[in-house]
Amino acid sequence: MTDRRSARAFVDTHVAPYADAYDRAGRVPEELLRRVAEAGLWAPFLPPEAGGAGMDWVTLGEVHEEVGRGCSSLRSLLTVHTMAAWTVQRWGSPEQRERWAPAFAAGERLGAFCLSEPGAGSDTSGITTTAAESGGGWVLNGVKKWTTGGQRADVFLVFARTAASIGAFLVPRDTPGVQVRPIDDMLGTRASMLAEISFTDVVLDRDALLGPSGFTAGMVLTGTLDLGRYSVAAGSVGIVQACLEASAAYAASREVGGTPLAKLPLIQAKLSDMVTDARAARLLLAEAGRLKDAGEASTIMATWVAKYFASTAAARHASEAVQIHGANGCSTDYPVARYYRDAKVMEIIEGSNEIQRMTIAGQADRERTG
Amino acid sequence: MTDRRSARAFVDTHVAPYADAYDRAGRVPEELLRRVAEAGLWAPFLPPEAGGAGMDWVTLGEVHEEVGRGCSSLRSLLTVHTMAAWTVQRWGSPEQRERWAPAFAAGERLGAFCLSEPGAGSDTSGITTTAAESGGGWVLNGVKKWTTGGQRADVFLVFARTAASIGAFLVPRDTPGVQVRPIDDMLGTRASMLAEISFTDVVLDRDALLGPSGFTAGMVLTGTLDLGRYSVAAGSVGIVQACLEASAAYAASREVGGTPLAKLPLIQAKLSDMVTDARAARLLLAEAGRLKDAGEASTIMATWVAKYFASTAAARHASEAVQIHGANGCSTDYPVARYYRDAKVMEIIEGSNEIQRMTIAGQADRERTG
Amino acid sequence: MTDRRSARAFVDTHVAPYADAYDRAGRVPEELLRRVAEAGLWAPFLPPEAGGAGMDWVTLGEVHEEVGRGCSSLRSLLTVHTMAAWTVQRWGSPEQRERWAPAFAAGERLGAFCLSEPGAGSDTSGITTTAAESGGGWVLNGVKKWTTGGQRADVFLVFARTAASIGAFLVPRDTPGVQVRPIDDMLGTRASMLAEISFTDVVLDRDALLGPSGFTAGMVLTGTLDLGRYSVAAGSVGIVQACLEASAAYAASREVGGTPLAKLPLIQAKLSDMVTDARAARLLLAEAGRLKDAGEASTIMATWVAKYFASTAAARHASEAVQIHGANGCSTDYPVARYYRDAKVMEIIEGSNEIQRMTIAGQADRERTG
Amino acid sequence: MTDRRSARAFVDTHVAPYADAYDRAGRVPEELLRRVAEAGLWAPFLPPEAGGAGMDWVTLGEVHEEVGRGCSSLRSLLTVHTMAAWTVQRWGSPEQRERWAPAFAAGERLGAFCLSEPGAGSDTSGITTTAAESGGGWVLNGVKKWTTGGQRADVFLVFARTAASIGAFLVPRDTPGVQVRPIDDMLGTRASMLAEISFTDVVLDRDALLGPSGFTAGMVLTGTLDLGRYSVAAGSVGIVQACLEASAAYAASREVGGTPLAKLPLIQAKLSDMVTDARAARLLLAEAGRLKDAGEASTIMATWVAKYFASTAAARHASEAVQIHGANGCSTDYPVARYYRDAKVMEIIEGSNEIQRMTIAGQADRERTG
Repeated sequence: MTDRRSARAFVDTHVAPYADAYDRAGRVPEELLRRVAEAGLWAPFLPPEAGGAGMDWVTLGEVHEEVGRGCSSLRSLLTVHTMAAWTVQRWGSPEQRERWAPAFAAGERLGAFCLSEPGAGSDTSGITTTAAESGGGWVLNGVKKWTTGGQRADVFLVFARTAASIGAFLVPRDTPGVQVRPIDDMLGTRASMLAEISFTDVVLDRDALLGPSGFTAGMVLTGTLDLGRYSVAAGSVGIVQACLEASAAYAASREVGGTPLAKLPLIQAKLSDMVTDARAARLLLAEAGRLKDAGEASTIMATWVAKYFASTAAARHASEAVQIHGANGCSTDYPVARYYRDAKVMEIIEGSNEIQRMTIAGQADRERTG
Repeated sequence: MTDRRSARAFVDTHVAPYADAYDRAGRVPEELLRRVAEAGLWAPFLPPEAGGAGMDWVTLGEVHEEVGRGCSSLRSLLTVHTMAAWTVQRWGSPEQRERWAPAFAAGERLGAFCLSEPGAGSDTSGITTTAAESGGGWVLNGVKKWTTGGQRADVFLVFARTAASIGAFLVPRDTPGVQVRPIDDMLGTRASMLAEISFTDVVLDRDALLGPSGFTAGMVLTGTLDLGRYSVAAGSVGIVQACLEASAAYAASREVGGTPLAKLPLIQAKLSDMVTDARAARLLLAEAGRLKDAGEASTIMATWVAKYFASTAAARHASEAVQIHGANGCSTDYPVARYYRDAKVMEIIEGSNEIQRMTIAGQADRERTG
Repeated sequence: MTDRRSARAFVDTHVAPYADAYDRAGRVPEELLRRVAEAGLWAPFLPPEAGGAGMDWVTLGEVHEEVGRGCSSLRSLLTVHTMAAWTVQRWGSPEQRERWAPAFAAGERLGAFCLSEPGAGSDTSGITTTAAESGGGWVLNGVKKWTTGGQRADVFLVFARTAASIGAFLVPRDTPGVQVRPIDDMLGTRASMLAEISFTDVVLDRDALLGPSGFTAGMVLTGTLDLGRYSVAAGSVGIVQACLEASAAYAASREVGGTPLAKLPLIQAKLSDMVTDARAARLLLAEAGRLKDAGEASTIMATWVAKYFASTAAARHASEAVQIHGANGCSTDYPVARYYRDAKVMEIIEGSNEIQRMTIAGQADRERTG
Repeated sequence: MTDRRSARAFVDTHVAPYADAYDRAGRVPEELLRRVAEAGLWAPFLPPEAGGAGMDWVTLGEVHEEVGRGCSSLRSLLTVHTMAAWTVQRWGSPEQRERWAPAFAAGERLGAFCLSEPGAGSDTSGITTTAAESGGGWVLNGVKKWTTGGQRADVFLVFARTAASIGAFLVPRDTPGVQVRPIDDMLGTRASMLAEISFTDVVLDRDALLGPSGFTAGMVLTGTLDLGRYSVAAGSVGIVQACLEASAAYAASREVGGTPLAKLPLIQAKLSDMVTDARAARLLLAEAGRLKDAGEASTIMATWVAKYFASTAAARHASEAVQIHGANGCSTDYPVARYYRDAKVMEIIEGSNEIQRMTIAGQADRERTG
């Protein structure tokens, strides 16, 4: 059974040692994607009847943390696949579930998530992609940007404007009119195979819509983005942990004037803050997961909080991890420069920290202990 | 049964509304101390046979958080009383336990903790107070400073240098040669009735020493300081929570140019950080408490982490709480100026944050998930 | 001739050693006010013909920095007196100037500044105090709050709403209908003799209005507040400098385990940041002063920047100064607890840091070097 | 005559538009190096008789700021060339000056600086490279790492251990036994053509040593590193300025929900801090330059302070600049991801910020105004 321990072993063996190479190549190799499938890590939260392992959310958070500790790019592929798989399972018709869920669980099909557009961020008000009803089905037109895994995914979960509201559509990559343009050389998560996806008169049958026609996508989106944030929060905890482990190892092994770095107070202060924030971030994540497992609506706010705290901590500590490594930290001989680049992305995706700070404040009035 | 909820109610009724008055008076009234006794809050962690309620540490943390939310001065009296009461229970002879524990549980006798001296902080190396063996007992000489509750306590837990090592002694206040000099006008926790205690040829019988003669006080001190830090951590969480509640209420009620403060993004950002850190600090505290309840030695490091995080957060957010209140926040019309003064003390007592940052770093090498 | 050097000597002799006593007493003694007058420090920027010394603004900033280094309360009295005196000199009729300027220069009359009201901060939109024309003069009604020096000032510069706009009025304290209610026990600048001033049917003659009738007070206010911010910026630099000097002295004299604090890296890091920010803040202040002396309108933005930077630095470093002093820092044996309380006020008065951050941003687009 | 204005024009025309391309290519093209020579920017501080323009240090700081605003990699080439050229001019024999200075001034020969070694940072204690006297000359052996410009430079200023002390040697790249190994794919300043330089039995004639034999390199190194820090400080100011300009432009042009980013308070707060720190950093730099021009020894401390402040500010604001740009900021469509990578390097080179914080603290005791 997969848990944090086995995920850590998997990551230490198959992921972490190669993550810098993936980063330079700008892609994760197919072989790794197969290994992830063999390890049952693509969608273990799906129920056994859908091919999953019925994994609880606390454990899934731990697994995504471990993956994120090794490679943020792979973790980001897991994130968007999780969003697609969960959404089909939660909102799909029996036919949709049957078609996609087992393939998602087995990693035979990879999902991606298409919300952002060139002129808009993570909200629905700026969506200009349209889905027009036509002949019992839909015709999709528009462009989606910053689609994580877009270069590789087999099916896209696309949010588009319908006559009535916003709809969520499953669009197989090989549908005529779908065009994938790779986005390379990003600052971070460089192996996450980002793409811009354009949809030109893409004809979909009725079954492509998740949920009944006229059904608003608001609820779909709330849950989907919540899972995305949960996974990014987990990945951010993983980055903090990776910074801590790399820095502790480096500080223990390098000396300045005969004294190990680990004995220098200014280095100790940084390590100490990493230990502290890694623990705090992990507890916030677990709390959000526990509330998910308990079916509490408050998990959504708890997930905002976890993502905000963890991503901020990741960026701060990645900067300090490079600092501890000095010039070596800027080189490819150590992974911390990658953490520094990846961590910055965490503060932006799935709701920037600025949006988070305004969202979480709404909770202030309701925060009473006891 | 006392728990967070009942403690909150107690604090909201009997403590919080008067805490500013205590602060100005520089003392907590006897009536409040009696009420605390009636509520069974002085030492509920003691076992029922010692007059306590056998309260677990997680709950005690919650109770001290609630008290700290209302009044840091009262919480600091609880802190040192807790240190004395636990130490007697843990290390005392049957006679010592019988003499002191029920009186501590009932709040009939209040304990205080004497470690710091004018020239030394929270470590034993600088102790100059001496305890010389003489005629089957001890003679104590020296001066202790910054003794919280010293103006009011009935018995002092004093650490003094013996021929062999460091010993921990219980010294009733009315022992000849004990002199109490109040320390007033401190920056924060102004009602905690600080004192400098001098011991001049104070004659104690053999029974005053906790643990067998020759027994080093190292273990006593480790456990005692750990509890002190745990309580200060809890009190710091309480300050963060108090800042959040005061700020949220103020921001909801005040307007600038027709817009409630609570809708201004720069205010929202502050509130958001308070929500986030209050949660993280509370989880770190609960984790330390859970490890105490489980008898895990790792609770000591977890308590360092909780105290470091919570005290730092308290100081930061108290400053922001004043900022949100503007000129009002500097006045006696609102409690936040008191939080600002009290919070600063949290970063210093029971091991300054500088010591904490060097201590926690020692953990970095051992921090591996999975 | 007064300059930084002589001001420093004055402060070191007559102000700094007594500032903690003033703070506790909640007032500055009359004897000190007289000494300030003898030293020619009340309004040295006034031209010689008005009784001043024609001091340039760069030097005035240095003088106010030195006073602020010794006592923020006295500096705040200088600040509001400066605002009143400059405004009369700049906008007053010949008669007004003749009546007030020499008395201001000699310190025979002290001025104060009345803008804030119970429900409004440092802007004019919330002004509810009214000045109605009546019989060739004015009748003033309303309440002003947070008036620095209000308990002591001889004349108030009051901003009130007229039929046409906002007017600035000079109101002698002994005018019938003027009532002064002391505001005590503030967090910081406790000796600045704050008051709430109420005006009930206060009859003023025509000559009480600064500038011609109908003249909007906007320009008056812009210049007056600019000088207030300049003086507060200077005082904030003084606090940073005071923190640095106190901390450096303490760190050099105290040891931990045989090592002077000054040799401990975590203490060095704090001292280093104080040195750095003291220099940066002082240069920003001097730049604002230089632009004032050159008559450049850009001095206003430069003053915003200097005040924002210096006040933020003061609050940060005062917190660290207390930290360096440990428990001693929270006591009355050292001045740093006072700096900690005073510095917080600097982040709020004369435009809170939140307002400053929004104002300064407006400059971003125009900031091009070369 | 070159000054800030002409340097800005040069950079805006020839450097800034291509800096991202240089970054991706990992090198600055020869054509640009020629243009820099034509503009007289390689060593304008050299006296006219040496082929320079006798440029003062304040102006040189401004010029390097402008170059750093456009391209940190080019600026870092200027930095090490400056260090080599100044050192030859200051400490070289007449023959050495005659041989190298005009070539340096004209950019016909580029210099680089070899101090760091694989196992040691920016101090001399860890130098293991040796220079043995032999037959009236020297034989050099050892390895130097992180040599900025090493892939391209014509002559290396090498610090090596002699029998007596440390010597500074000028080693032409084409000397037998000199081997250059490129270091690519660094986090930042990717076009600065870093190299590891190994010296294997490199035979130098007596004239290769700067200063008389036996002369310690301490003074040479102090001055050389001081200039390096000055140039890095200038380049860091340039990065802050670049962040400000890019962010202000982006915030003015992009909208969220119909509101320009530039009107959102959380964005304004970031812009405001950029404006503030850009000004403070620039003033600190100018102060260090002014002291250099005046021949004051205190310029060394002023330069430490300027470098510490400016590099820290650069890293902080580059992170915020990416944040303001959101996903776009992580892409190659905007320069801010480059600033984020380059800025991190500034906190490490020429004395890490940790070393700076301990060095500057030594000044605390001596910092008295007046």
